[in-house]
Amino acid sequence: MAATQALFLSLEGIDGSGKSTQARRLADWLRAQGRDPVLTREPGGAPGAEEIRRLLVEGDPDRWSPETEILLFTAARRDHLERTIHPALATGRDVVTDRFADSTRVYQGATRGDLRALVDDIHARVIGIEPDLTLVLDMDPEVALTRGLARGSGEDRFEEFGLEFQHRLRAGFRALAAEAPGRCVLIDASRDADAIAAAIRDAVAARL
Amino acid sequence: MAATQALFLSLEGIDGSGKSTQARRLADWLRAQGRDPVLTREPGGAPGAEEIRRLLVEGDPDRWSPETEILLFTAARRDHLERTIHPALATGRDVVTDRFADSTRVYQGATRGDLRALVDDIHARVIGIEPDLTLVLDMDPEVALTRGLARGSGEDRFEEFGLEFQHRLRAGFRALAAEAPGRCVLIDASRDADAIAAAIRDAVAARL
Repeated sequence: MAATQALFLSLEGIDGSGKSTQARRLADWLRAQGRDPVLTREPGGAPGAEEIRRLLVEGDPDRWSPETEILLFTAARRDHLERTIHPALATGRDVVTDRFADSTRVYQGATRGDLRALVDDIHARVIGIEPDLTLVLDMDPEVALTRGLARGSGEDRFEEFGLEFQHRLRAGFRALAAEAPGRCVLIDASRDADAIAAAIRDAVAARL
Repeated sequence: MAATQALFLSLEGIDGSGKSTQARRLADWLRAQGRDPVLTREPGGAPGAEEIRRLLVEGDPDRWSPETEILLFTAARRDHLERTIHPALATGRDVVTDRFADSTRVYQGATRGDLRALVDDIHARVIGIEPDLTLVLDMDPEVALTRGLARGSGEDRFEEFGLEFQHRLRAGFRALAAEAPGRCVLIDASRDADAIAAAIRDAVAARL
């Protein structure tokens, strides 16, 4: 068998858009193709990064300013990259991550438009890499919010920003997909889970 | 009485150099002058920043890379600035802080020299301000380390980097004081606490 290149794949989208389910299904499918993917998530994905995650996703919506949030998300991402993503890719394993840098670009950019430059600058300094392919799950925030709130995980700090915020996030993700068409594929996530999984598989298969 | 300008004062130096004691004595003296100082510290100094502090000062020396550390220290500093330092200065209160940005410049720069530019770039983007006066407590690391390890606080992650590291820190703080002579005053901290306190008072009195 010819040597294959390890793929770095991210799933992005608003809360409740089905990213976790689809990330799991994508990893299962890659395994069925004889590959050995690492399934991970942000914020988190490494022991230290998971500790930072708790500071970010729990508690009052106003506990951190957008600037502090950008620094904390990037700290968690750097740890995730060093301890999980880079080691996996270096040994030829695919990485499937539920969220990556695009979430910071869109979430912090959606609250304060002038912060996008800060996110990009810090990303360029300490993160650098982008996924080979980003699957942007796109759907109506009304439906997605209902799914997200039904989770009851206690990790609902961002969901408490409300529906108007989710609408801005959707627009942000769509704009990002248009900005990086070579890397991002917009997936209609209003369909049933099987149809979404099939669309994701098609997009990934084209890169294998 | 003429309106007085609130002063932003930081104390810096290696572990065990007596910063906490001297910060407290300086705040007491300012109070005796009829001023109303806020005594604070880094990492920490605000509820969120204190949570980040725990991630930084506890645990294994290698739990974070220098890059992740810089992001976490700067996140804590931004929170400290927004919630404690800026509000105090805005209402005319002096701020006395046990460590500020110089600690990040020296600690992370001492482990990896090429990181100083990263520290400075992120500082310029999200912190911006410098203290009006920085008191650099300078002393022999052998003596300072003994004092520091005697604390038994469990906050000894940096002290576990060892004596050679403390020597590099001392050199780093001395170089920084030479780099910013208008802002930094080097204080001989090998003397007894009363003599150190008197030297600090003299330096601060010149700015009142």
